[in-house]
Order: sequence, then structure tokens, then C-alpha cells
Amino acid sequence: TAKVSRISLSPPAVLAFGFLGLILLGTLLLLLPFATTAPITLLQALFTATSAVTVTGLVVVDTGSQFSQFGQMVIALLIQAGGLGFMTFAVVAAISLGAKIGLSQQKIAQEALGQTSLAQVTTIAKAVLLYALVIELIGVLLLTLTWWSELGFANALYHGFFYTISAFNNAGFALSSDSLMPYAGSIPVNLIITSLFVIGGIGFIVLIDVKKHQRWQLLSTNTKVILLATLLINLCAFSLIWLLEANNPATLQQLSIKDQVLAAWFQAVTPRTAGFNTLDYSSMTDASNILTLLLMFIGGGSLSTASGIKLGTFVILLMATYAFLRRRDEVTVFKRTVPTPLVLKALALALVSLIAIFISIFLLTITEQAPLLDVAFEVVSALGTVGLSRGLTGELSTFGQLLIIVLMITGRLGPLTLAYFLATPKRKRIRYADTRIQVG
Amino acid sequence: TAKVSRISLSPPAVLAFGFLGLILLGTLLLLLPFATTAPITLLQALFTATSAVTVTGLVVVDTGSQFSQFGQMVIALLIQAGGLGFMTFAVVAAISLGAKIGLSQQKIAQEALGQTSLAQVTTIAKAVLLYALVIELIGVLLLTLTWWSELGFANALYHGFFYTISAFNNAGFALSSDSLMPYAGSIPVNLIITSLFVIGGIGFIVLIDVKKHQRWQLLSTNTKVILLATLLINLCAFSLIWLLEANNPATLQQLSIKDQVLAAWFQAVTPRTAGFNTLDYSSMTDASNILTLLLMFIGGGSLSTASGIKLGTFVILLMATYAFLRRRDEVTVFKRTVPTPLVLKALALALVSLIAIFISIFLLTITEQAPLLDVAFEVVSALGTVGLSRGLTGELSTFGQLLIIVLMITGRLGPLTLAYFLATPKRKRIRYADTRIQVG
Ligand SMILES: [K+]
Ligand SMILES: [K+]
Repeated sequence: TAKVSRISLSPPAVLAFGFLGLILLGTLLLLLPFATTAPITLLQALFTATSAVTVTGLVVVDTGSQFSQFGQMVIALLIQAGGLGFMTFAVVAAISLGAKIGLSQQKIAQEALGQTSLAQVTTIAKAVLLYALVIELIGVLLLTLTWWSELGFANALYHGFFYTISAFNNAGFALSSDSLMPYAGSIPVNLIITSLFVIGGIGFIVLIDVKKHQRWQLLSTNTKVILLATLLINLCAFSLIWLLEANNPATLQQLSIKDQVLAAWFQAVTPRTAGFNTLDYSSMTDASNILTLLLMFIGGGSLSTASGIKLGTFVILLMATYAFLRRRDEVTVFKRTVPTPLVLKALALALVSLIAIFISIFLLTITEQAPLLDVAFEVVSALGTVGLSRGLTGELSTFGQLLIIVLMITGRLGPLTLAYFLATPKRKRIRYADTRIQVG
Repeated sequence: TAKVSRISLSPPAVLAFGFLGLILLGTLLLLLPFATTAPITLLQALFTATSAVTVTGLVVVDTGSQFSQFGQMVIALLIQAGGLGFMTFAVVAAISLGAKIGLSQQKIAQEALGQTSLAQVTTIAKAVLLYALVIELIGVLLLTLTWWSELGFANALYHGFFYTISAFNNAGFALSSDSLMPYAGSIPVNLIITSLFVIGGIGFIVLIDVKKHQRWQLLSTNTKVILLATLLINLCAFSLIWLLEANNPATLQQLSIKDQVLAAWFQAVTPRTAGFNTLDYSSMTDASNILTLLLMFIGGGSLSTASGIKLGTFVILLMATYAFLRRRDEVTVFKRTVPTPLVLKALALALVSLIAIFISIFLLTITEQAPLLDVAFEVVSALGTVGLSRGLTGELSTFGQLLIIVLMITGRLGPLTLAYFLATPKRKRIRYADTRIQVG
């Protein structure tokens, strides 16, 4: 047995196998007769399980009507397992079993948590779970209270439980086919749900840093960057969407100012990468949809329940562009230098994401009959594990569904895997002589 | 006077002023009563002059019917001046006047020609003009012979002259409103026109290297890369477009195999960045249009009559992605290392281009009523100074036309200006301490 336990897989491989196992298990559970109200196909079950484990929220089958309460609970658990993260679970499981963390798990957690000290890993892994459960508990309480009078206690608790898990984990699964549109004007639902997914999407490292230091000056540069970027991007998106939709009769024009503010705020924050919606994206202006594409591409904080290229990557890209244009040799942020390898890492992540998006859009324009905007929206939504759609998901061909499944998994595992690869020591090779190639 | 001649402008500023002066001159000439068959507006004249000087080929006024022969000759001369390049002209003018090349012109030519030795500059500047004129002369001869029987000698010569200048300079201006569609099946027209714009778009440095060494082993890495990339990209695009359009009744399906090959070849090579077309892009499949977007984004060789981010930049991006994914610390091509600053330069060019494209698409979706594909096509076509359109150009709002004008100028001057900025010594600044920011 000593020999068996020595079989070493690279951390990304462990992560990938764990995810695929979870998806497979979910697929089988969702295929059980009592999981659905009417039989679903293998592809539909696979799509739903993948969407849940990768916390995407794209659906080919209506969660509220086609799944039984058992099926819905399976989905919620898949979301929770996928969202809090296979890595954190693996570390915590190793701790709770009292065993020493093996080197491979340490590496996962270390890379996962962006920490360089191995000693911090177990502390952080425990904190992750504690934070998540405390915040989720508060979410369930508040949502149950909100829905009690409307739905009765038991049903309010059930909804509160499902929506809390779906929101905190940035999964975007809803129990009604029109997502949260019925609650577009509800202040408590808007505030609770957006708070849950914004907190979930900021990332635990940032939350822990805020909890520990409490004062702005003491926060790490990373924390400051993520908090400020979150605030600025959300405010910009809010203003732009309000402006772009204010005269749109299909969305905001008929609403009161209060409802306009709520709806603009919700649609501004949900693309990174919560995936609920209180407006219909196919009714919104093209400009709002283009803006949403960018927000979905950016995503949330690293090591959060959100996906995308991540806020930190986006900030480095912006500051790098600024440095390029100002002819500065260093990319700086808050009077700190971003090392060149980190800049290259950010550029690599963005480049690989863009290549994946381009190839996927190209393939889907061959297999699907839909306008470019719908196709691009679906692809970026899947790769960012956002879950918003202009309505294409339900109409996808078999190839289209399989491609979206691959994109959801790539979107959830890819950036971390890529970050791991880019962080590990490079192979030594023959050093070739330099060459000049014409650029620009 | 000694004092006046000392006023020093940065090379990009000289370049920009020269281009803007040429555009202004062209606008005034095109507004002359005898330049047009029916009066045109100031905006239309400005748009046409900009499109000609930047060798783009997007038109808001039909070149063949709305301009007189004088107007058409003005356009041809603007194309020639813009295409062979303000910089080369400036250097050659300085040489022909017998004056010593001032340091600022040297810098322009040096950066323009990608050469490090100042001694080579005058040699190359002369070679540029000689090559261009010899190739154009051959083009005029061949096209005149081709069209003689159809149009009569005088008209064939006139057409041969106009189309040679337009093709060699990758301008894409045509004398009929449907571009070269009437000649979709003509072997000589297809071969002569595509040869002219492919040669013009490869870049003089490459042409000179090929002329000088003649054998593959002796060519510089840059030349090998550009030649091989040109061949591979053209063959891939040819196969894909043939495949994607073979069953499209609106394009290739009804044609003979010979005509299918000709049309697929023409549409494969024209997006980088010639701008003529023998098929209607709005009738082609969405997938072909998406592929064309990529080809337009890539563009031709550096210091050629083509634009775009340039072939060399694209190759470095591909090899960088490959190196990232293989966890290699060096970007290599043909067993040569691409220095990190050059990789960063390529990434910066691509990033800035993508940001410009995104913002432009966002703005146009607000001002124009058109599908995303048409808008994206127009923006990428303008920034790459390609000149292909799905029909939006003629329908653009005033804001839309002004934005496209800015994009055409940015597309022609931007990459070189940016390359200049990124190549010049950087300012020394305070070195800040390093910071870690979460990526991926
Ligand atoms: K989601
Ligand atoms: K062109």
C-alpha cells in the first residue's frame, strides 16, 4: 500500500479527476427516476451536473419544474462541492482525518491560496469553510425571513437554502425559469442575493485579510487592488447599464426610479460571475450586452466562488497597457512593482482565454443557427462559468451542448491549472541565440 | 533660419502631421467641383481621402460613378503616397535633394525599416521605391493586356493603372461598386491582383532579403517566419473558406470547381489587408466572416503596404502561447530565442488593438442599428485598414463615420507609432518594491 499511495499525480490532474468524478456522480444521481418529474436524457443530466459542479448555471432543463426536490438538492450539493472548491475540500479532508498533508495536497492548497508559507495552509483551509458556512447561514436566515409570508415557512426555508447556496457559490441556478425576474423590484431579495454573490466572488484571501487587519492602510496591495477594482467596476457597470437601458421600453423605461436602480445594480454585478438575472438580456440593448461580455470575461477574485480571468489579472492587464503607453519599464500599482513574470502570466491567461473564445465562437457559428451576439454571449458565459444566456442554451445542437460542457469545465479548472503550470519551475533547455522579428 | 530648422518633433509626430496634411490636401482636392460627377459633402470627402491615404478602401461614395477621372486620379495618388509610405518618401526626398538626412528622419526610417544600422537606411529607402515601381509597372502591363480586348486600349490602361496602384498598396479601392465580383471567374485578373497585393503586403525588408540571398538557408529568421506564415495562413484560410462556402448556394455552390478555387483563394488572401472582394461577404457564412475577422486582425508584413497587428506580431503571440502552455521560459522560433522585451512588445500591440476594437464596437452598437457581426466586421476592417464591409459603411451615422475615420488613421499609424514608443529608451523612475497580485 505504501507503493500505491506513492503514485504521484500533478496537482492539476488531481483537481481535474476530482471534478470529473463529481460531475460523473452528479450525472448518475440526476438520472435516477425520482430525481426528475419527467425523464431526462444522459446529455441533459451531464450538462446539468457539469453546470452545477462548475457553478455556471446554464440550463438545458428547467431546474424548478423538471427536477424533483431530491434532484434540486443534488444540484445544490454539487454546487456547494464545486463552489467551495475541490481543493479546499481536499485540504480540509486531509486535516480532519488527522493525517499530515501530503506534498501534492500542500502544493494544491498553496497554489490555490496564493500563499508562499506552507504553515498558513491549514489555517486558511479551515477559515475558508468557517467563513463560507457562517455567511451562508446568515443568507438562509435572511432569505427565509424575506419569503416567509409569501411562501410559508417550510417553502421559504427551502428556497432560502437553495438560493443561498446558488448565490454564495456564484452558481446562478434558480428555481423558476425566469431566474429572479419576479423579484426585480424587491429590495431585500436584491440586497441579500447580490451581497451573497459579491462576497462569495471576492475571494477568501481578501476576506481573511480584511478580517485580520480591518484598517485600509494595513491591507495587502492585493486586497486593496481587489476591493477597489470591485467597487470601481461595479459602479461603472451600474452607471453604464442604467444609462443604456433608461430609454429601453423593454427593460427600464416603464419602471420607477427605485426599480430602475435595483435592476441596473443587479445586472451590473451579476455578470462577474453570479449568473442570476432580473432583466431579460435578449431584451436589453446590444451595447449593454457587449458591456456584459467584458464583465463576464473579467470575472471575480482569485480563489473565490467566481471564475473568469479574474480581477487581479484584469487589473494587471490594464496597468500593463498604461505602462506600455507611457513608455515605462515597470508595471506599477499602488506604488508597488508588478514583477515581469507576473505580467507575463496575466497576459498568457488573457491570451489563452481569448484564443479559446475565438475558436469556440467559430465552431458554434458552423453548428448553430444564431446571431453572433447570442453565440458570443453563450461562449463567454460558459468559459467564465457565468450562466447568463440570451436564450441559446436550450436550442443548442448536441455538438453545441458538448462544446459548452467542455468550456464550463475549462473555465472553472483552466485558469487555476494554467496558473499552476505558469508558477512551477520551468524546464531547463538549450538556450538558443536571440533573433529579431518585425513587430508592428 | 538655423533656429527654425532646429525645432524638433518626435518621429511619430512628424509621421502623424504628414499623414494628416495629406488627408487634408486630399479632402480639398476631392471637394473641387470637377473631381466629382455630383457634389459630395465635406464628411464624404474627408472619409474618402482618409480611406485612400490610409490605404483602407472603405467607401461612403462609389468611386467609379461619383468621382470624375480627375477625382479617381487624386484617389490613386493619395493611395500611392500613403501606401509607399510617408516615411520612405521623406527619406527619399531628403536623399534626392542631396541633403544629409537629419537625425529625426533617420530615426523614422530606422524604426520604419527595422534596421539597426544607420548606413543601410538610404540604400533601403532607394530599394523600396525601385521595387515598388518595377512591380507596379509589371502590374500595369499585365492588367492592360488582360483588359485590352474587353475595354479598348485607353480604358484598359486606365483601369490597369488604377487597379495596380490600389492592389499593390493594399488599398482595395475599385472602379465598380461591387469591387472585383464581375471578375470572380477570371484567372488572369485573380492571379495578377492577388500577386500584387500579396507581394505588396509581405514587406520590403523581406523582399530585399529574398532578392539578396535567394537560398532558404541564407535567409534571416525574420524572412523565413514571414514567408512561412504567409504560406500557411493563406493555405489554411483557403481550405477553410472553400469548405465553409462549398454548400452555400449564395456563394460557391453553383460555381464550377475552377471558379470555386479562384473565389476561395481570393477571399482567403484579401483580408490581410487588400480589401478587394469577388464574393459578397454578407452572403458568406457567419463562420467565414468570423475567420475573416481574425485574418483582418492579423494583417500583413511589417513595413509593407498592409496593416493589422502584422504577421510577425501574430507569430510571436502564437509561439508565446505555445511556450506558456509547454511551461517553457523562452519563446523560440526556428531554434532562435525571441527576447522577452520583443514578446512584451507583441503582447502590448495585440492588447492595445483589442482594447481599441472593443471600445469601438461598444460605441457603434450605441449609435448604429446593425447586428454585432456587421459592426465588428466594420471596426476590425477599419482598424486593420482592410476595407472589406458587410454593407454597413454606407449606412453609418455621422458619429459612426467619424469613428471609422479615426480607426483608419489609428490602424495605419498606430502600430508603427506604438512600436516606436516601445522601442525607444524608457525613462528612469523610482524603483518600487515588488508586490504579488492574485492571477488566475
Ligand atoms: K455562475
Ligand atoms: K485595404
